[in-house]
Amino acid sequence: MTGLSEEVRPNKAFGWAAIDTSGVLSPFKFSTRGTGEKDVAFKVLYCGICHSDLHMIKNDWGTSIYPLVPGHEVVGEVTEVGSKVQKLKVGDRVGVGCMVGSCHSCDNCTNNLENYCPEMIFTYGAKYYDGTVTYGGYSNTMVVDEHFVVGIPENLPLDAAAPLLCAGITVYSPLRFYGLDKPGLHVGVVGLGGLGHLAVKFAKAMGTKVTVISTSPSKQKEALENLGADSFLVSREQDQLRAAIGTFDGIVDTVSAQHPLLPLLGLLKSHGKLVVLGIPEKPLELPAFPLIQGRKLLGGSMIGGMKETQEMIDFAAEHGIKADTEVIAMDYVNAAMDRLLKGDVKYRFVIDIGNTLKSIS
Amino acid sequence: MTGLSEEVRPNKAFGWAAIDTSGVLSPFKFSTRGTGEKDVAFKVLYCGICHSDLHMIKNDWGTSIYPLVPGHEVVGEVTEVGSKVQKLKVGDRVGVGCMVGSCHSCDNCTNNLENYCPEMIFTYGAKYYDGTVTYGGYSNTMVVDEHFVVGIPENLPLDAAAPLLCAGITVYSPLRFYGLDKPGLHVGVVGLGGLGHLAVKFAKAMGTKVTVISTSPSKQKEALENLGADSFLVSREQDQLRAAIGTFDGIVDTVSAQHPLLPLLGLLKSHGKLVVLGIPEKPLELPAFPLIQGRKLLGGSMIGGMKETQEMIDFAAEHGIKADTEVIAMDYVNAAMDRLLKGDVKYRFVIDIGNTLKSIS
Repeated sequence: MTGLSEEVRPNKAFGWAAIDTSGVLSPFKFSTRGTGEKDVAFKVLYCGICHSDLHMIKNDWGTSIYPLVPGHEVVGEVTEVGSKVQKLKVGDRVGVGCMVGSCHSCDNCTNNLENYCPEMIFTYGAKYYDGTVTYGGYSNTMVVDEHFVVGIPENLPLDAAAPLLCAGITVYSPLRFYGLDKPGLHVGVVGLGGLGHLAVKFAKAMGTKVTVISTSPSKQKEALENLGADSFLVSREQDQLRAAIGTFDGIVDTVSAQHPLLPLLGLLKSHGKLVVLGIPEKPLELPAFPLIQGRKLLGGSMIGGMKETQEMIDFAAEHGIKADTEVIAMDYVNAAMDRLLKGDVKYRFVIDIGNTLKSIS
Repeated sequence: MTGLSEEVRPNKAFGWAAIDTSGVLSPFKFSTRGTGEKDVAFKVLYCGICHSDLHMIKNDWGTSIYPLVPGHEVVGEVTEVGSKVQKLKVGDRVGVGCMVGSCHSCDNCTNNLENYCPEMIFTYGAKYYDGTVTYGGYSNTMVVDEHFVVGIPENLPLDAAAPLLCAGITVYSPLRFYGLDKPGLHVGVVGLGGLGHLAVKFAKAMGTKVTVISTSPSKQKEALENLGADSFLVSREQDQLRAAIGTFDGIVDTVSAQHPLLPLLGLLKSHGKLVVLGIPEKPLELPAFPLIQGRKLLGGSMIGGMKETQEMIDFAAEHGIKADTEVIAMDYVNAAMDRLLKGDVKYRFVIDIGNTLKSIS
């Protein structure tokens, strides 16, 4: 596909981009396509900083295209809609997550699983149908196919809603798919970061008993009192581990760093499910014996389809689930990336794009 | 539990036992308990040699109790039943698999999954309720709780039925549990041994399209013509692997030797399932990325419950599924073990106990 060049895209836009593998972000001007008949244009108001933004700006996965405007936890207000747009209108509060396109014809797409479509187009750093590169939400405006835009209910504050578009759906979808959403089940959450803190909130709202599993005893108070977990397990304490063997119906493991799976498999009941959401650099070491002896299961999951993303947002609104955020100004983004690398945030940085992204002359 | 000593067990019996970690089997006299009110006593006619017998006679897993009489693919004819036995009578053709006891009260037991009961008692080399050690089917007679005895339909030859009691249920149960039993699904079978050849037959009888995945091109003719597989994939041929990427709904992996999982995960469609049945000595190396990107799933499975074992036997009888066996005499067992270690058998040794086990004076 040769596609449109930047020059013929009519709408001027600006944001912050990484321009090389240093990953340093700086102001950047670009343009967007005109609002097509099925497109929604919106003013970006907030954008969450996902851990994968950190990988992408530095090209850790070898797929980055520079200049790279990150951001796939984007919320804002609709400014224009195409003639065939049906579900949204000017002024609506909307969100965009990790994807802005898919083939609409494969098995996954026809089953509302666009997130697993082989031709799924990521919100930033990917080639769009017209050959242009997609730019994310660290920017003043976006034009996105209506299919990939969700509505955000009035009672959900936009800054606290932004992280739901990636972190939220990433934990919500596997809780549903793996059947860990039934009242009375015992669900473990490993890792208390952007994903983990939302996993606790969603799993609690689904009626399960939630135990946070962490290497850091210091997080206990936070987990129980702020996030509402039912119990806390220090995974480095052998006594605590032993006492909890065989007591979990499922565990959602949000940790990306290398870590042993054997103790987690041991915590599961027979037929229990360990869902991994982080991607360590090296392969996981997986002993086959517990899988076989207890018919335990290891599965993954990646964000969620658009139908389920809307369902997740509506569920969050209904149950008052908000991400715990530290709202920052646009020009703090590089400092925020440094802190994120050290895990120094509770639990998600959200950039106040609407009030702090300055126009570039 | 102190239990009964050998001396007070009333019934004389004999078989072949390993007496130390050399694993060499030799004639051995022992005794069995009297036929209790819920027990079935039967004359052993055939017993399959499972690969785990080879591990157990040498104490590879550190759990063996000597003298060890192996054998958990046992078929025979009922000689006596206790007063409360309901489903079996003298003269019935019966089979016993890997277990002879369980707690009958845990969640697994109440869900017909005695095979996952924490107190499940293995057919041989384990402590029974009365404190005695269980002896397996390399012997002239067995006394087993009716609950752990299945009936074998008349049209199923006993020698070909014996391997179904372990190898058969080991592949049948995961095909059912993981939903790989639907007509039209594409199922892969890795490894063409005792388990693998039965997996092909069961999966075909369930109506799936079956591809054998093997490192040995020499097995192609056998897989297609004798076992009835639909296609054959040489896993060392990169071109063949590439052409099959994303085409399998599920793969049943019966290989115990260390082998890479990444190519197998690549062969799965999104949401596909890789079921591991072999237990390599070292942990498996599992890359998280394919699990997450395609929501693929890795699971295990271990034999099956008694209800499902009977269902499997009845299904085999209905569909004419028999194990391919090499029937041997009792005194050939040590030579057979040597050949089994080298994988030199198509596909299961079965000992003709009824005709070749000589009484010990």
